[in-house]
Amino acid sequence: MNFFTMCVFGAAIGMAIGTLGTAIGQGMAVKSAVEGVARNPGAASKIMTTMMIGLAMIESLAIYALVVCLIILFANPYKDIALKMVETVAK
Amino acid sequence: MNFFTMCVFGAAIGMAIGTLGTAIGQGMAVKSAVEGVARNPGAASKIMTTMMIGLAMIESLAIYALVVCLIILFANPYKDIALKMVETVAK
Amino acid sequence: MNFFTMCVFGAAIGMAIGTLGTAIGQGMAVKSAVEGVARNPGAASKIMTTMMIGLAMIESLAIYALVVCLIILFANPYKDIALKMVETVAK
Amino acid sequence: MNFFTMCVFGAAIGMAIGTLGTAIGQGMAVKSAVEGVARNPGAASKIMTTMMIGLAMIESLAIYALVVCLIILFANPYKDIALKMVETVAK
Amino acid sequence: MNFFTMCVFGAAIGMAIGTLGTAIGQGMAVKSAVEGVARNPGAASKIMTTMMIGLAMIESLAIYALVVCLIILFANPYKDIALKMVETVAK
Repeated sequence: MNFFTMCVFGAAIGMAIGTLGTAIGQGMAVKSAVEGVARNPGAASKIMTTMMIGLAMIESLAIYALVVCLIILFANPYKDIALKMVETVAK
Repeated sequence: MNFFTMCVFGAAIGMAIGTLGTAIGQGMAVKSAVEGVARNPGAASKIMTTMMIGLAMIESLAIYALVVCLIILFANPYKDIALKMVETVAK
Repeated sequence: MNFFTMCVFGAAIGMAIGTLGTAIGQGMAVKSAVEGVARNPGAASKIMTTMMIGLAMIESLAIYALVVCLIILFANPYKDIALKMVETVAK
Repeated sequence: MNFFTMCVFGAAIGMAIGTLGTAIGQGMAVKSAVEGVARNPGAASKIMTTMMIGLAMIESLAIYALVVCLIILFANPYKDIALKMVETVAK
Repeated sequence: MNFFTMCVFGAAIGMAIGTLGTAIGQGMAVKSAVEGVARNPGAASKIMTTMMIGLAMIESLAIYALVVCLIILFANPYKDIALKMVETVAK
């Protein structure tokens, strides 16, 4: 498999695995927040604040993975080198 | 396997794995929300609000994966390069 | 394996893995809903509402995977390129 | 492996993995429904309604996978292309 | 697969797996923090402080993975060596 093929495949699989973990992490956080509101509705606003901060931190992890994927797709630093290699092979 | 083949395969598998995690995460959130409503029906509206915010955050992760897959399928930045490579090989 | 083979294989496996996660997620949600109705039948309608919203969100994830698979099968953006490649190889 | 081989293989494995998850999901739902009826037989009809709606949603996921597999087997959009490719190779 | 291909693939998969674990770890932390606020809302500010310190520590782990990925993409120490190797092979 050549360079550009693996760029695309890596971005697809990378974002997918990044989503896998962050979604399970956020699921655990929301799970407990909802249980907490059920047990103690009076503390709902405090629970919401805590949950939102936690979800934002986990969301940032997914955004790291998204950034790496978008760099690989749209700002790949090895693109020019790979192009030159292909050209020299083609000659 | 060539470039276009892996684009399609990557998009299919990428969206699939992205769905896997987000669905389990949302399942955990809904599970607890439903348990909470059963235990304390009076807090149903507060529980619903908390659940919806959490689900929306997790849904955003699945949308990241969907965006990467659609970029790979419809706005692939390496498409022209791959086409040129194929043409030079064909000559 | 050539392009069209992997399109079909990718769509089949992609939908399958997408179904795997969403089904387990929905299973967790329904499990708790049923337990909740058993414990507190008076709250059955509220539990049903919460469950339906959650299931709809998870169902949307499966539909993302389905959309990607159907695009790959019926609106594949690389189909023409792959056909041309095959023709040039055949010559 | 050629195109038609992978179609059949993909359909078989795809439906299998799709069944894997949906069966576990439905199993969790039915498990809890049965436990609920055992604990509180008076709520049996309400439990049944909740269970049926949940099972129907999970069943829909398996039907998505089934649809993709049947498309691959009986309405494969790449069938004609693959046939032509085989014929040109045979010449 | 050559050097530059594996650089890109390694960065994508590396960030993805790094995100997987840190997200689940943060999810567990937020889960307990939210439960704690629900049980004892008076201690919400102390719980928040503790959670933030913990999340920041876990976040640092994801940032390590991000740094390694960005070094591989933008400041790769073996880039020149790999380029020379390619050139000598090309001659």
